[in-house]
Amino acid sequence: MHHMREMIATHPSVQGNTNDVLISCIEECYSCAQTCISCADACLAEEMVEQLRQCIRLNLDCADLCLAAGSVGTRRTGSNEEIIAATMRACAAACQACAEECERHASKHEHCRICAEHCRRCAKACNEAADSVRNPVAA
Amino acid sequence: MHHMREMIATHPSVQGNTNDVLISCIEECYSCAQTCISCADACLAEEMVEQLRQCIRLNLDCADLCLAAGSVGTRRTGSNEEIIAATMRACAAACQACAEECERHASKHEHCRICAEHCRRCAKACNEAADSVRNPVAA
Amino acid sequence: MHHMREMIATHPSVQGNTNDVLISCIEECYSCAQTCISCADACLAEEMVEQLRQCIRLNLDCADLCLAAGSVGTRRTGSNEEIIAATMRACAAACQACAEECERHASKHEHCRICAEHCRRCAKACNEAADSVRNPVAA
Amino acid sequence: MHHMREMIATHPSVQGNTNDVLISCIEECYSCAQTCISCADACLAEEMVEQLRQCIRLNLDCADLCLAAGSVGTRRTGSNEEIIAATMRACAAACQACAEECERHASKHEHCRICAEHCRRCAKACNEAADSVRNPVAA
Repeated sequence: MHHMREMIATHPSVQGNTNDVLISCIEECYSCAQTCISCADACLAEEMVEQLRQCIRLNLDCADLCLAAGSVGTRRTGSNEEIIAATMRACAAACQACAEECERHASKHEHCRICAEHCRRCAKACNEAADSVRNPVAA
Repeated sequence: MHHMREMIATHPSVQGNTNDVLISCIEECYSCAQTCISCADACLAEEMVEQLRQCIRLNLDCADLCLAAGSVGTRRTGSNEEIIAATMRACAAACQACAEECERHASKHEHCRICAEHCRRCAKACNEAADSVRNPVAA
Repeated sequence: MHHMREMIATHPSVQGNTNDVLISCIEECYSCAQTCISCADACLAEEMVEQLRQCIRLNLDCADLCLAAGSVGTRRTGSNEEIIAATMRACAAACQACAEECERHASKHEHCRICAEHCRRCAKACNEAADSVRNPVAA
Repeated sequence: MHHMREMIATHPSVQGNTNDVLISCIEECYSCAQTCISCADACLAEEMVEQLRQCIRLNLDCADLCLAAGSVGTRRTGSNEEIIAATMRACAAACQACAEECERHASKHEHCRICAEHCRRCAKACNEAADSVRNPVAA
């Protein structure tokens, strides 16, 4: 698991002194992106695909934002707090919307049930990370 | 040019009735992403690369957000206004920061001068697009 | 247009001495990625979406590869010929498959007609770029 | 861990009947992408960044291809074997080149040592996945 923590701890500006809230967020973002790409594809193959258009669309939006958030959050060279905070807020909004839509299909489609859970968890992690970079003392 | 306008006009939910402010924004986002990827690489090859670390990092952040913003802004199936607005605000913040850093190197490096210009234009387009999806009457 | 040519010409290792076949390829890749993202979304909104599953899937694959190919092809720092050639071949395969599928729907859906054209052009540009980096004398 | 296996097993065309070689490959690709993005950023912050230009460039190429390969490999709707195989070969080439370059810096930089290991593992998984989709009986 703690794959990104291990990598980021070796960064010359970090030297083991990691922001764990931010790192958890990065791990959730990359994981959620993968889940959303997979959920979009599974929805596309469902017989009732015409009822899953909004779900597919939000899956794709959420995946795009999660990948961007994961990458932006990973970089520890120089500084970039305002961009990280705005990115994590945008990602949290996408995760929130995707979770709500996926939940509407969760009883019928197991992939939507799993995806809704991941999106909820990622939204929470993104909001906590946005808070932590804005108020580093509280982190 | 008006490549994305041509495509989006054919979308069944759009039927020629395009939001031109949003489409200009999408075109700027994709163009700015390409410029930032190229500027990061050109900075990396400069003799004085150690003075361009922050520039490279912001170039990469900006490219990630511009690509996500371009894709999220392109989708016209269903609806997603809040996510589009938050994404465009995050992208504008990244473009703004990247423009400011690139401008510091613009007199020495032509790629930074061009990139700063693109980032300024993209930040403006993103803010206008965020306004237009929030207040569609005004669009 | 010649937006990427302008940027890449400023790279310290290039100094105006651009590989025009490769640059045309990069421009086609980024443009094709945008078209494919838009076509996938327009297909998703079509009434007959269940007949467009394969098209949407190939659009998304093609977009992913075109974006990767555009970025890999853009970098001129150091060297990377083998990776560029393999990437352009993979991208050409995706463009070719996407063009063939889009053509099956071109008479009904204008977005598929335009997308098929872009994919054909991009496949050709990718194959030419792969040849040019493998046989630089002929470029 | 077996996060992607869990998701892909719920796909209507898969129904628990997963290609485990391909799924391992997808998991390695996404993990390697994250490692390469992080290694590029850590290299950029090193005092001796001018000796790490080629490493950063290959990290970025490898990350782009790993993300594309992860997404292309994830989709199980319709079919796409030729594209998957070509993509996995291109990704393996990028991982191979990145591993070789990272190994040159592994004794000095822990992030390069970890990244080289991930890239080696991902190259192997990509080549095995390319074989498995080409010769599904043997998979």
